[in-house]
Amino acid sequence: MAGSTFGELFRVTNFGESHGPAIGCVIDGCPPGMALSEADIQPELDRRRPGTSRHVTQRNEPDAVEILSGVYEGKTTGTPICLLIRNTDQRSKDYGNIVQTFRPGHADYTYFQKYGLRDPRGGGRSSARLTAPMVGAGAVARKWLKEQFGTSFVGHMTQLGEIDIPFEGEAHIPNNPFFAANASDIPRLEAYMDELRKAGDSCGARIAVAARNVPVGLGEPLFDKLDADIAYAMMGINAVKGVEIGAGFASVAQRGTVHGDELTPQGFASNNAGGVLGGISTGQDITVSIAIKPTSSIRSPKRSIDLNGQPATVETFGRHDPCVGIRATPIAEAMLALVLMDHALRHRAQCGDVSPSLPAIAGRIV
Amino acid sequence: MAGSTFGELFRVTNFGESHGPAIGCVIDGCPPGMALSEADIQPELDRRRPGTSRHVTQRNEPDAVEILSGVYEGKTTGTPICLLIRNTDQRSKDYGNIVQTFRPGHADYTYFQKYGLRDPRGGGRSSARLTAPMVGAGAVARKWLKEQFGTSFVGHMTQLGEIDIPFEGEAHIPNNPFFAANASDIPRLEAYMDELRKAGDSCGARIAVAARNVPVGLGEPLFDKLDADIAYAMMGINAVKGVEIGAGFASVAQRGTVHGDELTPQGFASNNAGGVLGGISTGQDITVSIAIKPTSSIRSPKRSIDLNGQPATVETFGRHDPCVGIRATPIAEAMLALVLMDHALRHRAQCGDVSPSLPAIAGRIV
Amino acid sequence: MAGSTFGELFRVTNFGESHGPAIGCVIDGCPPGMALSEADIQPELDRRRPGTSRHVTQRNEPDAVEILSGVYEGKTTGTPICLLIRNTDQRSKDYGNIVQTFRPGHADYTYFQKYGLRDPRGGGRSSARLTAPMVGAGAVARKWLKEQFGTSFVGHMTQLGEIDIPFEGEAHIPNNPFFAANASDIPRLEAYMDELRKAGDSCGARIAVAARNVPVGLGEPLFDKLDADIAYAMMGINAVKGVEIGAGFASVAQRGTVHGDELTPQGFASNNAGGVLGGISTGQDITVSIAIKPTSSIRSPKRSIDLNGQPATVETFGRHDPCVGIRATPIAEAMLALVLMDHALRHRAQCGDVSPSLPAIAGRIV
Amino acid sequence: MAGSTFGELFRVTNFGESHGPAIGCVIDGCPPGMALSEADIQPELDRRRPGTSRHVTQRNEPDAVEILSGVYEGKTTGTPICLLIRNTDQRSKDYGNIVQTFRPGHADYTYFQKYGLRDPRGGGRSSARLTAPMVGAGAVARKWLKEQFGTSFVGHMTQLGEIDIPFEGEAHIPNNPFFAANASDIPRLEAYMDELRKAGDSCGARIAVAARNVPVGLGEPLFDKLDADIAYAMMGINAVKGVEIGAGFASVAQRGTVHGDELTPQGFASNNAGGVLGGISTGQDITVSIAIKPTSSIRSPKRSIDLNGQPATVETFGRHDPCVGIRATPIAEAMLALVLMDHALRHRAQCGDVSPSLPAIAGRIV
Repeated sequence: MAGSTFGELFRVTNFGESHGPAIGCVIDGCPPGMALSEADIQPELDRRRPGTSRHVTQRNEPDAVEILSGVYEGKTTGTPICLLIRNTDQRSKDYGNIVQTFRPGHADYTYFQKYGLRDPRGGGRSSARLTAPMVGAGAVARKWLKEQFGTSFVGHMTQLGEIDIPFEGEAHIPNNPFFAANASDIPRLEAYMDELRKAGDSCGARIAVAARNVPVGLGEPLFDKLDADIAYAMMGINAVKGVEIGAGFASVAQRGTVHGDELTPQGFASNNAGGVLGGISTGQDITVSIAIKPTSSIRSPKRSIDLNGQPATVETFGRHDPCVGIRATPIAEAMLALVLMDHALRHRAQCGDVSPSLPAIAGRIV
Repeated sequence: MAGSTFGELFRVTNFGESHGPAIGCVIDGCPPGMALSEADIQPELDRRRPGTSRHVTQRNEPDAVEILSGVYEGKTTGTPICLLIRNTDQRSKDYGNIVQTFRPGHADYTYFQKYGLRDPRGGGRSSARLTAPMVGAGAVARKWLKEQFGTSFVGHMTQLGEIDIPFEGEAHIPNNPFFAANASDIPRLEAYMDELRKAGDSCGARIAVAARNVPVGLGEPLFDKLDADIAYAMMGINAVKGVEIGAGFASVAQRGTVHGDELTPQGFASNNAGGVLGGISTGQDITVSIAIKPTSSIRSPKRSIDLNGQPATVETFGRHDPCVGIRATPIAEAMLALVLMDHALRHRAQCGDVSPSLPAIAGRIV
Repeated sequence: MAGSTFGELFRVTNFGESHGPAIGCVIDGCPPGMALSEADIQPELDRRRPGTSRHVTQRNEPDAVEILSGVYEGKTTGTPICLLIRNTDQRSKDYGNIVQTFRPGHADYTYFQKYGLRDPRGGGRSSARLTAPMVGAGAVARKWLKEQFGTSFVGHMTQLGEIDIPFEGEAHIPNNPFFAANASDIPRLEAYMDELRKAGDSCGARIAVAARNVPVGLGEPLFDKLDADIAYAMMGINAVKGVEIGAGFASVAQRGTVHGDELTPQGFASNNAGGVLGGISTGQDITVSIAIKPTSSIRSPKRSIDLNGQPATVETFGRHDPCVGIRATPIAEAMLALVLMDHALRHRAQCGDVSPSLPAIAGRIV
Repeated sequence: MAGSTFGELFRVTNFGESHGPAIGCVIDGCPPGMALSEADIQPELDRRRPGTSRHVTQRNEPDAVEILSGVYEGKTTGTPICLLIRNTDQRSKDYGNIVQTFRPGHADYTYFQKYGLRDPRGGGRSSARLTAPMVGAGAVARKWLKEQFGTSFVGHMTQLGEIDIPFEGEAHIPNNPFFAANASDIPRLEAYMDELRKAGDSCGARIAVAARNVPVGLGEPLFDKLDADIAYAMMGINAVKGVEIGAGFASVAQRGTVHGDELTPQGFASNNAGGVLGGISTGQDITVSIAIKPTSSIRSPKRSIDLNGQPATVETFGRHDPCVGIRATPIAEAMLALVLMDHALRHRAQCGDVSPSLPAIAGRIV
């Protein structure tokens, strides 16, 4: 109830602070008998890891994951899987100068008001570092969904600050530090980031993420709609300010004659719905787009107040991502996987085993 | 788990179908001792009711609410409040011609795939009619929040199809059928709707909704963030395809120097955050914007398939809203109220009584 | 969270007060496609109904159940099933004399302290009348479990006040007002009750309840153990003060050489475990025993205090059961069915479909 | 949903296996600002620890607890508290001979049927060792309840096998290995245990546990009654087969004139209710009694079957408690504390701050 658990049947309970000894999570409800080791999880953590290019925070942590429970002789046992990640590069002294002042755009102010306490250690619990255990848990969900249904997840950046990033091909995504499905614009993006960093400023980003080979029938009809749970998961990622499913905000100006996806014996003829109708998956790709705000920690001075309500000026030094959106793609993929995993289990609770053959007619767009 | 309950501590369990004998909800967790009668609830239901202008469905139902439990001698007792609304104008024969065919853009297809059943009665559970009990429950939440903190909710339409609706003043909202904060453009909106109806087509809408006098400190830090729960609640409203908090998608192109709301001893200097930082309310107005897709039920023919997967053509007759967004404003207000109510109770569970004086410095925008 | 919902995946939300207009429940999570009508539910309600013999309250209500939602053309749709039971014989004036005084052994005092309100209408929410919707929901669970696994439930009274009731055969249970598996002692039990009623006193009872043909593997290993959830369900029935599983309190004085049930290729050789090991069903009969305290509403005067804390004397008139245990058997059966139903759905969520053939070797006691 | 989380608002998620690298729990929902360190928790763990007398398992583990998160500068922050206990004496080879055979009275058989896996490491998740993190979490709850309301918890053994243990005074409890409130019978208990151990047998125990200075008004009226949640918590402790509240099974033979606790201006005149009426605390002591079965792991041979369903004989060597009840007292106290803690938070969510002065008239028994 204090908001550290995600999911209902595939439940991930997250713990830790960015500057404490460790972060991690407990996954409860994983089906038994699935092969699992750290080697299935570490690659996803590595994709999200800081210090991988000059455009992200230089905090340098291996983010090595350790499985403490729930796996025996290489297989899940059905009991809780605890993932532990030790913090190794805490350097909390970097944050010393902000102890007495609330940083604009940051959670310091609201945490202080809520809990009556000031934890100056670089955001503590509000740090994006706490997404690492979710990426770990997401890797477990992805593996199960892949094995059961062939479901896969792919995200990419579609906008960096003011710059739209044209789609050139998914093959490019792993080959640049932005998770862009693009090769030709990368130099321009790198120059943009270099300029921002020099200016002591930051920018936002827009990320598209999709799930493929999704079983038909996942999601609940009234609340806990699949799209509602996706919106919840995405808006819960640090710095996200907007979420769209399918045609999103563009659907406002669409006519009904255009928007409603026609069905044919070969499948749906379009996907304005983004793979969800009435809260339930159609078997088409689930398509999501999210808006990420510019990082609040910037070198440029901003007005604020201190713990006594007196005026103060804040300049944030230390190591920060000038665009938190750059590392958001694997996080968004993981959260989408966690939502689908949970609903796959919920569906089979009420309706029996989810058949991988169900998407037959729905899975194709002609 | 089957998705008919909303909220954790102020729990609303919704039941019924649009063409069954009744719809309603059970509210569990309402604080005891609050004055409550049908007269507190009916006005909100009347705002959402069909048949109030020529631009909405002509289904004509009084939507009269009856309190079956949880109130004694005019006060809430702390035990569950059951709200019952009898369906009086069901006319399910209007839907006879669609029994064998899936309507494009509708939930028929996904319900059929999920449950293996075909309920042709006009959408059954997927009908927007099921928002009526939520508007009723929202009225209970609004009353409590008003009495405790002076919190209020106001929504209005900001876009109808392709037409942006300039903000002219909140006083106009109750004076037109669109919930527009505008007077001068109403004739244009009415003409637009008349033309759409003649063309057998439909359009989308964009709604802005805000909460005022919100206590500081509501929301949880990691999951169940206030904005995540708002996104969940909004995306769960029928036909919603996008949700923004504060600056929303516009924040992508903002610089950090612009976006981060500065603090002054008199309050925040702007509200790009939309009243939420790190998932927790700042005490500023909470501002939300949602995209509503065009109604899928239109007279114009569309391609589809029947229960045997054979090609078919669908033309939807019967009574429908050509823009479901027209009646969405009171629904969005109610859902926002339900989220805040739930978090107000959650906050005082963990942190003790929520003080109405907390927003003192935060509640103003200079 | 305010305690009106039972179950996690087969969720029953109960509403109403004994002297309001109606009581009922909403069942969320019922699998779709099961044939269901009022005729499946009413017989169980009739078994629990007041006014059926001179030994129970003379309140006379038909307890006619109405299905308001979730069933279409005689089959469950997978959406919430609302059961409504109108109160027809409220006569709250009978309780007029106790408005200002707390009745010893009753919930008046604790409700008043918890909610700050005094609802004098005969117990309101604390009345055993609120078990009626649970018996209705239990009938739905029983039908599904019967169809899936052949599971059945049978309870009987084993002790009435000081009198032990020897087991003579299950066939006797429906033929006497006590649900006793006995024929020869019935006259003695009737005489005992007549004497109690004349004396203005009341007595307790002990009920045994069993489930048969239970699938192996239901229950969770750490919390939400099957026996823990059974204990929760049973202790939650009005007036229950003790719960045993299998050998129960007698196991304290057993040696390990005696208690541990041996396994043979033909099945377990005994059932001291009561069908649960490590919180998970073995496939044997689940056997439970519960203690029900004597009714607190008695004619004999007792010391108490009034709303001002002043001494008072309470004599309860009105219509009461001199032994609430007499009608408890169908309630205990229903609650046990609800626990198993919930765990059957939970099991298939995590582990896939529950095979009816699983109990093969375990289901027999040699 | 897979049963590794206890509580609703003060949520404890337990992980680990007895023979894995570590066990622990994540406590979510602890109020912020309470002083907390390992020194507050370790003493309770030490009371439960193995190897403290010759009558308990000789497994020798320090059970040293480490706080990984949720505490900053010695105070709880309101974010999740992770407690980690490393396993240091795993010696799983001791269990080698039982890999292929199901041990009578043990969870091996049901785990195998549920999950389709055989984890032979001494019970894995079903081991009583998993109560250690709960004792740790219980210590946190006890501290908060003590500071808020002065609530305290005390348990003692009342029966060991066939031997009743007379109550001689609480001062004796810490002075013997049995948690007996008795001094004169200790030699007899020790001799009894020595004889059992020589015989390769085991016995059960009965434990009484009480909470004092409990606020009035905790518990929910219908489900989640305080006594129902206590029954759930107690029956969930390893090897428990029965639970009583107040007069328990003795209430069956009581008359209503005797059982109902009279109220006087000075408080209740007796406590047959065990401190709970209608599911809600009265402010009196909460009194609970539990039955613990004899340990299933005994040296004496028993009939069983192997993984192929063939007959086998099991003799359990290795280190075991001949009476698991001997170490159950601190566990039962902890679980009772966790239930009360959760309900204290739930109560203030719905009804506002729980006043420590509420028990005024109720807290005394004259």
